[in-house]
Amino acid sequence: MATQGQVITCKGIFPSFSIIPPAVAWEPNKPLVIEDVQVAPPQAGEVRVKILFTALCHTDAYTWSGKDPEGLFPCILGHEAAGIVESVGEGVTEVQPGDHVIPCYQAECKECKFCKSGKTNLCGKVRSATGVGVMMNDRKSRFSVNGKPIYHFMGTSTFSQYTVVHDVSVAKIDPIAPLNKVCLLGCGVPTGLGAVWNTAKVEAGSIVAIFGLGTVGLAVAEGAKAAGASRIIGIDIDPKKFDTAKNFGVTEFVNPKDHEKPIQQVLVDLTDGGVDYSFECIGNVSVMRAALECCHKGWGTSVIVGVAASGQEISTRPFQLVTGRVWKGTAFGGFKSRSQVPWLVEKYLKKEIKVDEYITHNLTLAEINRAFDLMHEGGCLRCVLDCQV
Amino acid sequence: MATQGQVITCKGIFPSFSIIPPAVAWEPNKPLVIEDVQVAPPQAGEVRVKILFTALCHTDAYTWSGKDPEGLFPCILGHEAAGIVESVGEGVTEVQPGDHVIPCYQAECKECKFCKSGKTNLCGKVRSATGVGVMMNDRKSRFSVNGKPIYHFMGTSTFSQYTVVHDVSVAKIDPIAPLNKVCLLGCGVPTGLGAVWNTAKVEAGSIVAIFGLGTVGLAVAEGAKAAGASRIIGIDIDPKKFDTAKNFGVTEFVNPKDHEKPIQQVLVDLTDGGVDYSFECIGNVSVMRAALECCHKGWGTSVIVGVAASGQEISTRPFQLVTGRVWKGTAFGGFKSRSQVPWLVEKYLKKEIKVDEYITHNLTLAEINRAFDLMHEGGCLRCVLDCQV
Ligand SMILES: NC(=O)c1ccc[n+]([C@@H]2O[C@H](COP(=O)([O-])OP(=O)(O)OC[C@H]3O[C@@H](n4cnc5c(N)ncnc54)[C@H](O)[C@@H]3O)[C@@H](O)[C@H]2O)c1
Ligand SMILES: NC(=O)c1ccc[n+]([C@@H]2O[C@H](COP(=O)([O-])OP(=O)(O)OC[C@H]3O[C@@H](n4cnc5c(N)ncnc54)[C@H](O)[C@@H]3O)[C@@H](O)[C@H]2O)c1
Ligand SMILES: [Zn+2]
Ligand SMILES: [Zn+2]
Ligand SMILES: [Zn+2]
Ligand SMILES: [Zn+2]
Repeated sequence: MATQGQVITCKGIFPSFSIIPPAVAWEPNKPLVIEDVQVAPPQAGEVRVKILFTALCHTDAYTWSGKDPEGLFPCILGHEAAGIVESVGEGVTEVQPGDHVIPCYQAECKECKFCKSGKTNLCGKVRSATGVGVMMNDRKSRFSVNGKPIYHFMGTSTFSQYTVVHDVSVAKIDPIAPLNKVCLLGCGVPTGLGAVWNTAKVEAGSIVAIFGLGTVGLAVAEGAKAAGASRIIGIDIDPKKFDTAKNFGVTEFVNPKDHEKPIQQVLVDLTDGGVDYSFECIGNVSVMRAALECCHKGWGTSVIVGVAASGQEISTRPFQLVTGRVWKGTAFGGFKSRSQVPWLVEKYLKKEIKVDEYITHNLTLAEINRAFDLMHEGGCLRCVLDCQV
Repeated sequence: MATQGQVITCKGIFPSFSIIPPAVAWEPNKPLVIEDVQVAPPQAGEVRVKILFTALCHTDAYTWSGKDPEGLFPCILGHEAAGIVESVGEGVTEVQPGDHVIPCYQAECKECKFCKSGKTNLCGKVRSATGVGVMMNDRKSRFSVNGKPIYHFMGTSTFSQYTVVHDVSVAKIDPIAPLNKVCLLGCGVPTGLGAVWNTAKVEAGSIVAIFGLGTVGLAVAEGAKAAGASRIIGIDIDPKKFDTAKNFGVTEFVNPKDHEKPIQQVLVDLTDGGVDYSFECIGNVSVMRAALECCHKGWGTSVIVGVAASGQEISTRPFQLVTGRVWKGTAFGGFKSRSQVPWLVEKYLKKEIKVDEYITHNLTLAEINRAFDLMHEGGCLRCVLDCQV
């Protein structure tokens, strides 16, 4: 390819305040600007990907808001995307130019303590670099604007026409799959499905409660339905969510605003003692407590999926656990990214899981500010941005 | 038997303030007095047991202290004991007079929702009565002093020469077993062993941390050793505990007082990332947090065994769970009491589990105040009281 080994100049998106040191001009929520970004060639163990489509997720908005104390600026956000390999660095064997891929913020090296444990998907191989916005090889960024480095984000940085990721952070998928759809398999949908299948391991006949009916909560519902749950109770403060949720398997709805009693009590009463499994898909620590406490004594298991703001804490009486409830959490639904994202793509192609149904809006990368606005409105599940127009 | 069907007058122990309504004369920690107690015959579904030996446990001391808001006075405490069935009420088929038994504060009816779930040992059959100090049949007590009713405690009330329990709350054991030893299988020892075997399901090669090296913590160590744990780290603020603990399988000791760093950090450093399983065997909510946070990212599981004072809460950052740690608790180690206590007795008889080694003191029921004093001194694990002298 003509671009191989060359710096690529392309359109990238990042907070406009970001090229000024953030300590000096910290302006949370200032509109993102589209800039000409230089994307350096991939070094050893790296892959440069042409991003065709990216969706937006709450972690992008959270970091952009300035509330994440670990957020580094200037940076290129974005982590739910799909694209085509443009070139690969030295030693990269598992993908090659032209391969269709999904960038994976949750890496999978298959050789670290975590990958080998068989107990978790939280690979540790490149975390020391991705956690601070750089690449492992030289601990520098591959992005720059007018010579000034721009940090990577979550090891993916998909709000750009090209990005560079570690080879352990990219899943090769079936080229038949429509990239404008399967980009969603980079975060929200697998998170919800995997929370049910991998983390909670919901059995047939279970009663399930889902707090928050955004993309993640709906994917939990879909996963629970597939697992044979007998009742799937959706809880949301936005009643507009209920109609859509039916299509994803939710069988009953509860709006906490309709009740005087604490929501955990409402659910315990509704289910003769509590639910078998609950999922918090909002990121609100008081809801996390309610989700635990609405579980059935003796066996109820609550899974935290939502990401709370930094510094916030969950609490409960220890008696809740001593009497048999279990408190867990999940990251990327417990899926091993490089091994299992391609499998999810196959399931989508076989129509065994939904993807299209989560996409409520389609815009272009240049319209990203409108897309963030949509995300904060009730009617939007996922907005997919076309990055190449 | 001569006593069958008759009221038995025997020695029973309860807080001396207890025959005055507690709201009027609440005097926590006032010495217990020995009284002549009338024990009514067992009604339908009940069993009257001659208690030969009882040990003391922290729940007795906690309720006695007046700090338990659900504690009812006057009451007869005690729940770790062994005895012989004196008589049975109508419809009782599984035990008969002369059977050797261990009273079980955790009932097992084999037919309620909990028992049938296969997921928990928390039988619900008699809880509505035992929770308020009475018997199911007539919702009254079988104990009285000069005609005044005395409440039951935990469905067992073993600080008495005779007690009445529900038939679902009594485990028939091998009559060969020495009752002055196996009385310990009524609470502390099974709790520790079961926390490892049933609740955490520790696998061979695991790294285990135990917070608190009393009877429960030592039983956790014994269970972990039997499960093949590779490292068993005991944490206690009383260094006197360390010598004994070696005999129960603890391989390393940490005294939080020897460190400036938070204890969770000390353990993470000591274990290259954290332990596979941790057990809180103290009842201290800040230690519960430390026990969770010293677990390895991705899979570490923490089990709360200790019972915290009422109203206290545990807390942590949800990120601890989202990154793969699991928070659980256990009651009676998850053992199904009537089915499994006899099995534990067999294991003891085959010398597969220790019991004698936890008994550091032997006294009589009349010396119970001295026994409570001992419990609060470092040197005592379990003190067994002979009830019939
Ligand atoms: N653990 C992971 O790996 C992972 C991955 C992706 C997303 N997430 C997190 O999952 C969460 C959900 O993501 P999403 O994209 O579905 O978000 P979303 O905003 O689309 O959905 C959240 C829903 O919760 C509802 N809600 C808000 N407050 C509520 C309350 N108090 N009670 C009941 N409902 C309430 C909202 O009306 C909305 O429908 C976010 O916190 C996100 O950061 C976690
Ligand atoms: N969940 C259940 O079913 C169940 C059953 C029995 C007992 N328990 C509870 O288990 C707990 C332990 O019982 P036990 O009989 O072994 O008690 P114990 O008092 O004999 O042992 C507690 C140990 O913890 C140590 N300790 C106290 N504070 C500490 C701290 N901050 N850091 C480290 N070590 C500390 C003490 O020195 C002592 O060695 C109690 O809370 C009891 O109520 C629970
Ligand atoms: Zn996301
Ligand atoms: Zn790895
Ligand atoms: Zn006890
Ligand atoms: Zn039962």
